[in-house]
Amino acid sequence: MLKPTLKKVLIANRGEIAVRIVRACAEMGIRSVAIYTEPDRYGLHVKRADEAYSLGEDPLAGYLDPARIVNLALETGCDAIHPGYGFLSENARFAQLCEQHGITFIGPKSDVIHKMGDKTQARDSMRSAGVPITPGSEGNLADLDHALKLANEIGYPVMLKATSGGGGRGIRRCDSPEELKTQYPRVISEATKAFGSAEVFMEKCIVNPRHIEVQVLADSHGNAIHLFERDCSIQRRNQKLIEIAPSPQLTPEQRQYIGGLAVKAAKAVGYENAGTVEFLLTGNEVYFMEMNTRVQVEHTITEAITGVDIVREQLRIAAGEPLSYRQEDISYRGYALQFRINAEDPKNDFLPSFGRITHYYAPGGPGVRVDTAIYTGYEIPPYYDSMCLKLVVWALTWDEVIARGKRALDDMRLHGITTTANYYQQILDHPDFRAGVFDTSFVPSHPELLNYSAKRHPSEIALAIAATIAAHAGW
Amino acid sequence: MLKPTLKKVLIANRGEIAVRIVRACAEMGIRSVAIYTEPDRYGLHVKRADEAYSLGEDPLAGYLDPARIVNLALETGCDAIHPGYGFLSENARFAQLCEQHGITFIGPKSDVIHKMGDKTQARDSMRSAGVPITPGSEGNLADLDHALKLANEIGYPVMLKATSGGGGRGIRRCDSPEELKTQYPRVISEATKAFGSAEVFMEKCIVNPRHIEVQVLADSHGNAIHLFERDCSIQRRNQKLIEIAPSPQLTPEQRQYIGGLAVKAAKAVGYENAGTVEFLLTGNEVYFMEMNTRVQVEHTITEAITGVDIVREQLRIAAGEPLSYRQEDISYRGYALQFRINAEDPKNDFLPSFGRITHYYAPGGPGVRVDTAIYTGYEIPPYYDSMCLKLVVWALTWDEVIARGKRALDDMRLHGITTTANYYQQILDHPDFRAGVFDTSFVPSHPELLNYSAKRHPSEIALAIAATIAAHAGW
Repeated sequence: MLKPTLKKVLIANRGEIAVRIVRACAEMGIRSVAIYTEPDRYGLHVKRADEAYSLGEDPLAGYLDPARIVNLALETGCDAIHPGYGFLSENARFAQLCEQHGITFIGPKSDVIHKMGDKTQARDSMRSAGVPITPGSEGNLADLDHALKLANEIGYPVMLKATSGGGGRGIRRCDSPEELKTQYPRVISEATKAFGSAEVFMEKCIVNPRHIEVQVLADSHGNAIHLFERDCSIQRRNQKLIEIAPSPQLTPEQRQYIGGLAVKAAKAVGYENAGTVEFLLTGNEVYFMEMNTRVQVEHTITEAITGVDIVREQLRIAAGEPLSYRQEDISYRGYALQFRINAEDPKNDFLPSFGRITHYYAPGGPGVRVDTAIYTGYEIPPYYDSMCLKLVVWALTWDEVIARGKRALDDMRLHGITTTANYYQQILDHPDFRAGVFDTSFVPSHPELLNYSAKRHPSEIALAIAATIAAHAGW
Repeated sequence: MLKPTLKKVLIANRGEIAVRIVRACAEMGIRSVAIYTEPDRYGLHVKRADEAYSLGEDPLAGYLDPARIVNLALETGCDAIHPGYGFLSENARFAQLCEQHGITFIGPKSDVIHKMGDKTQARDSMRSAGVPITPGSEGNLADLDHALKLANEIGYPVMLKATSGGGGRGIRRCDSPEELKTQYPRVISEATKAFGSAEVFMEKCIVNPRHIEVQVLADSHGNAIHLFERDCSIQRRNQKLIEIAPSPQLTPEQRQYIGGLAVKAAKAVGYENAGTVEFLLTGNEVYFMEMNTRVQVEHTITEAITGVDIVREQLRIAAGEPLSYRQEDISYRGYALQFRINAEDPKNDFLPSFGRITHYYAPGGPGVRVDTAIYTGYEIPPYYDSMCLKLVVWALTWDEVIARGKRALDDMRLHGITTTANYYQQILDHPDFRAGVFDTSFVPSHPELLNYSAKRHPSEIALAIAATIAAHAGW
């Protein structure tokens, strides 16, 4: 039976992940509290949570204000905060503030977030634990001379990376000393602006790797397990587009090895809660890239193949309960794909396409899961992530999951904005993708996949009128 | 790789099951042809199929006209017909007509449909095969005297059943000779009207049994397997409301035994394609009730726990391919519930509540599947089944699947009509249901579950206007 020791959780996020957390709370008998800024007043997470509080007019400030959010949690009698992904989810100071005020932060301890967020500290921890890391700097770079000398030793191309970075930002590739000289000050400037830290380190650039990441769960009783891997090689400029679980390009031995590495990494840093250990694979080499100390956008596909409800486990772990599973309880079945349906126009360099959804009809039937906060009449605000829907499909075999993905993408109706859905149909038709052989060079090396004809809808005006009325009917 | 030998399939049905079959065809690269009568002109199956043809003004005649449908299949170059459930799906003459015209009927051979549709023949077959049947008449009843004499031997209560019946119709319980005298002519009259046959047989009435049915798959190469059972004990007047897989009230030994019986039953009659063997359980006794020679409304929950795509297998089997699985390949995981969301008012004796859907928003997130043909603005025609949506939830444990069911029911928005959704929330809260202990008396013996307050929506008029515009925007 359910005996949640958490009674009320504040969700410090918006959009689909906030809805995902509201649902997990509802299923566990936990009361949910949403926060929103004014552009999100009509957000689905506001409609669905048990309570919702405005954090002001500014689109972003409220979501990024640790003190205000912790105070609200205290005022509304919450015993925990779920940070979702993005925003403050990997902000050690936020986690620490929660700890100081007796609010359970649903994630690892603040010092672990700090350690894994500092990429050079993370590399040090992994080196000590015996987890393979890419050749590169021990600690941060002192100056440009240090960078040039080191690059000469490990060989070009190299990557300059912001030590406090994440989410694909603050990263530059340098193929020559000249490029390194140009990029070095740029990365420092970008890192200072985006992450408030000028620290930069260097890694050997693994050219066209496969991006493989392992989902881990660890409780406060010293138990840590993995839930197998996800293949996130289908990405554009470090932004994942289609994620796959399990990877069609690992042998069972590789799967077991990499899963073991991830558990070793989590244990080495005293990790608690759900986390993801990201690796780069090239040939038979495996290198630790980074650990994301939060729930991941693509946790859904791991849920699809293992049956484990990851957000539920996050809430259980935060409540001090032991893991529901031992490693030997975890198995996987079939394949899952997640399509990130972004409000972007692939044919126009993926330019964001915000605006009102004039018609939305969810795909359904067997093996289809949708996580979204959009609805007919919803206007996508221009201030946030362009990802507006996650379409997850599952099937027993690789061929079937591709066929199901094509069918579900076709099944979905989403009018009023341009999305990446049609582009994904092109990827699913590519022989390399169908053969299950691809790396991070797949998207950039196939610009021809952008040559599709976008469908126009016949009755946009009527739909727009209907959508506007429906959106204000207050459901 | 997919090598469908079926190229084009006519779907002789409507509503959600027609959409389900369109989806399976799409995933297999098979072209789909929908049929409709005028009230269904805006049906989702018409929008989604590759081609659609009207069969006239009459709401029902077109769906029930074997010759016309077979002719249309021939004219449009279809090589097969999928009958779905209901309508002509268990009509042996329709299957035979297909056979005669070289159209593959996606189901068993016509003589098998005939044999299993004739309930006394089915009982004979099962008796010969060693599948336990309820005590009752060998063959049909000759007359009332025969009925009275037999009832005296096997003991009251007894059931009078139309030999050609099905779907819960043409069945009367008799608790005494007096009742038998009254009901005997009534059943004969009902059977004649509904099924065109006056033949009636008798079975001992199993009082308050559990209704357990086993999904089987059999190919044209002599292979037959089962996909475990479904517990359909939550029913009202022989209409299933909530279905469960696997049954929470079977031991592993019982599960294996009953699965084996179903395979034995299928093999005994030379069954081909997907079918369901229904059993009644009381104490430790198991009795064959009937075999449904078609895809079942509740096939979805078996798909959820086994991962097998049953409609896909139907199409493969019909194409002459061997089963994709051996019995030892089949396992199940977790629990699934299906809620039949009917356009009915439970508080008003389940009176149908047809009309326009003013707002529909699909539930989503982990472990949720929706099969439906409704959409915002759709007007449910009064001529057909009142079931308008199947909500399927899956989770690893019994407690979690109940919590998920409650959450998903709550998540769904369906305005403009009254449905059974709120009533199901009541059932999910009942201690006996939660304990997994119930039989077919559960619904009739808990009238207090109808005492809930129905929610009203605040802006019905605005939603109705928006829905009307959206429905005519031609998406």
